[in-house]
Amino acid sequence: MLDHARALVHFTAGRHGEWRVKDLRDVAGAPLPPTERVSIGIGPALPDPQSGWSLRGVLSHLRYTTADEAARLAALQPPLGRPEASRAALIPISKSAAWWALPQDERRAIYEERSRHTSIGLEYLPRIARRLHHSRELGEPFDFLTWFEFAPEHEAAFDELVARLRASEEWRYVEREVDIRLARSA
Amino acid sequence: MLDHARALVHFTAGRHGEWRVKDLRDVAGAPLPPTERVSIGIGPALPDPQSGWSLRGVLSHLRYTTADEAARLAALQPPLGRPEASRAALIPISKSAAWWALPQDERRAIYEERSRHTSIGLEYLPRIARRLHHSRELGEPFDFLTWFEFAPEHEAAFDELVARLRASEEWRYVEREVDIRLARSA
Repeated sequence: MLDHARALVHFTAGRHGEWRVKDLRDVAGAPLPPTERVSIGIGPALPDPQSGWSLRGVLSHLRYTTADEAARLAALQPPLGRPEASRAALIPISKSAAWWALPQDERRAIYEERSRHTSIGLEYLPRIARRLHHSRELGEPFDFLTWFEFAPEHEAAFDELVARLRASEEWRYVEREVDIRLARSA
Repeated sequence: MLDHARALVHFTAGRHGEWRVKDLRDVAGAPLPPTERVSIGIGPALPDPQSGWSLRGVLSHLRYTTADEAARLAALQPPLGRPEASRAALIPISKSAAWWALPQDERRAIYEERSRHTSIGLEYLPRIARRLHHSRELGEPFDFLTWFEFAPEHEAAFDELVARLRASEEWRYVEREVDIRLARSA
């Protein structure tokens, strides 16, 4: 089992919160309403009804990563919450029914052998910290909530990383995507 | 996204329901209270508070199955609800933290190359219909709810299938398991 008290993460739109929205761009599919700020909460508590949208996801196990890739990631990836990482991106993503109907080996081949998802991400470590939240099984509007933290001087590198992934074969299966850029409140 | 109105399944204990409990056996880990009957519901509605335990899971994508295996399964596996399949088994299972910490390739190798999970299951098709419900991401007490339907004359074959899987390397990672045998009410 997975303990929602520690593994369920909420990203809630509103007028309060640690992260100020610098830009919210609807990349594909249905848009997400703009908001001033985003707060992050852990656990099963319901969000404040005064808030705007709230997206939920769980911290769960690796779905495509091999032992070798996991070791390379573990050696390089930084933690969240570094003092210098005052910029962040929340990119909720949904993939198409066609993606989810593929067997595991075909999804893996598209994800890494052909799109180089993990390999591309490794090039940007340790500059960009990353955390993946799984939302699909929760019946949420997005399948994943991807979260990234980096220093302001690495935002251009982050833009490049995102552009490379969006040009990949894997991204042909992305049918909804919103790119929200944030700055940590002083 | 995954539509909970069609993909979320509840198995609810109580005095009413389509399936009568013939036997409930705690195989590993914490027990589950006995019950007279089990009902199955679809969608996000809350169960009747008069009921006993209620376990939830979602119908989701394949996690280990290759394209070749998926084709062999599709050619042989029967639907649920066959008139002659008046017996069923609900076997909720949780795997250990050690299992979930393994990378994908190591979990796949244990699941199929070493434990022959799919290959063993194929031997019992089309006698035994099967549906898997994913519960882990929902913060449920079990990781999976496995459901099987078969005719009374195939219960011995089902016992053999279950015994072979329980003897496999994969089952060393199963830390909680309850085996509930059911008969469809007339």
